[in-house]
Amino acid sequence: MRRRPKTIESVGEFGLIDQIKKWIPPMHRSVVCGIGDDAAVFPMAGGGYQLLTIDTVVEDVDFKMNRATPQQIGWKALGVGLSDLAAMGGIPKMAVISLTLPRRTPLRFVRDFYEGIRKLARRFRVSIVGGDLSRGPKISSSIAVLGEATRTSTVFRSGAKIGDLICVTGRLGGSILGKHLNFLPRLREGQFLARRGVSAMIDLSDGLGQDLNHLISNSRTAFMIDEAKVPISEAARKLARGNLRRELIHAFCDGEDFELLFTIPRSKLGTLQRAWPKRFSIPLTVIGQVMRLAKGMRPTYRYQGYRHF
Amino acid sequence: MRRRPKTIESVGEFGLIDQIKKWIPPMHRSVVCGIGDDAAVFPMAGGGYQLLTIDTVVEDVDFKMNRATPQQIGWKALGVGLSDLAAMGGIPKMAVISLTLPRRTPLRFVRDFYEGIRKLARRFRVSIVGGDLSRGPKISSSIAVLGEATRTSTVFRSGAKIGDLICVTGRLGGSILGKHLNFLPRLREGQFLARRGVSAMIDLSDGLGQDLNHLISNSRTAFMIDEAKVPISEAARKLARGNLRRELIHAFCDGEDFELLFTIPRSKLGTLQRAWPKRFSIPLTVIGQVMRLAKGMRPTYRYQGYRHF
Repeated sequence: MRRRPKTIESVGEFGLIDQIKKWIPPMHRSVVCGIGDDAAVFPMAGGGYQLLTIDTVVEDVDFKMNRATPQQIGWKALGVGLSDLAAMGGIPKMAVISLTLPRRTPLRFVRDFYEGIRKLARRFRVSIVGGDLSRGPKISSSIAVLGEATRTSTVFRSGAKIGDLICVTGRLGGSILGKHLNFLPRLREGQFLARRGVSAMIDLSDGLGQDLNHLISNSRTAFMIDEAKVPISEAARKLARGNLRRELIHAFCDGEDFELLFTIPRSKLGTLQRAWPKRFSIPLTVIGQVMRLAKGMRPTYRYQGYRHF
Repeated sequence: MRRRPKTIESVGEFGLIDQIKKWIPPMHRSVVCGIGDDAAVFPMAGGGYQLLTIDTVVEDVDFKMNRATPQQIGWKALGVGLSDLAAMGGIPKMAVISLTLPRRTPLRFVRDFYEGIRKLARRFRVSIVGGDLSRGPKISSSIAVLGEATRTSTVFRSGAKIGDLICVTGRLGGSILGKHLNFLPRLREGQFLARRGVSAMIDLSDGLGQDLNHLISNSRTAFMIDEAKVPISEAARKLARGNLRRELIHAFCDGEDFELLFTIPRSKLGTLQRAWPKRFSIPLTVIGQVMRLAKGMRPTYRYQGYRHF
């Protein structure tokens, strides 16, 4: 009997990323952070860092044509990349847009798609500097965003220390009811947090359960979450219809919250908590703590988030 | 009777790009060159320019799974972006890769795809610094490349002057027989030409006929081509089977030659022609001349190149 070749489905997205990291060693010594964080980080000529990220949205996977307006699709296509930069404390500067379209796509879809991009780009002063058009069986768009950050205020996934507190912005779960299309990337919040000494940060795209694993396993630590503290969104409550267990499952597993999950030394929390409400109206919640990884313990959490394959 | 909405097919790729330019005005004054050239150009902190480009290859449009190896697909996916930078005289530095895959894609496809990318990236010292994985109905890949160039050696599409000579590297036509998958981006040639005072440059992706229009209409000039001088590739000869007219049609219309088409002041040609064969083994051919655009004359050529939609 012939063995079937392994598929990407069988190794999963993160198994695949681990493989790719081995296949593609970075060339320039200067690259501070490559594959595996929210964005690549490398030094800029005049001091400071540059950040580069790319994200793709695909019809029927990331949006459905009968449930999203073209403007929302454009907004989301750019938003996911901006959210990546937010998680590093970065400031987006330029973006290039690749758009793949079936031949029969109405011209007004493209106009409205770019209108969604333009609105979000203007809000955060991002220049759309170029792109590429291709033909394909379904609509999809890849956007690369180039940004900047100072060396001291760049936050990686990998800085969590034992004893740090785990915090989250906003409220989680139920993004399918709308937020996954109209979220506001937490750029200002990310820059604010980066200046206040957070130790590690990630944006919540795959769901709290899974993204906790990404944040914490990169730091080789474990974590403890107080489930009662996890801030639940209105949408998650609506979907759960009063079932508290189901609310939590939505908050942990739905994904595409595009909020920020971060760790911060206990000594810096007080100042942050006092300053936060003067700048932002969304909540900032302490939900847990970074723990020592006991010998033989695997730094994973049992909640499954969104599976890409 | 209800009017059918306009489709992108009816306006064509370049009609669509013209529309998009109106929809998306660039934000930063500092952007030297945005939508409409081979790459976006903007000043770097320490002096010099940065270049950013994005390109997508799609299964069944840019490659067929039964006619290309996964390595060739990876090579091409990165190569088209490198060719864009070559046309500006740029040096590629970093790339981020978005890869969209159906669930059942064999793991070894991904490994070999990245092997193709790795080989080309290593050859030109490009660091693969990040990426994104998505699920989709067909394989496609978008790659953004970030590069650099000095201010004096960056070449745009729009610099052709009346009287300049029109030249091309390599031999044209018939890329479908293999070159569209295994071409070597003309990066060294592009940097060499940029330092020797070429006035405008573009890479031949849509075919000489169409790319001449892009090069020349950006400069608001006309052109005259000596068809007998156009260098014909072996592949084009093979496809044309001895029919000289068909050879020319292949050279003008096939596209994906990934050679460089450029204009140069007559005074600089001699030095270039003497220096070229000491560095490169591919031919450099003068094929025509930039002319004054007569009143009422449209700067277009009758040969049709590749149509994206």
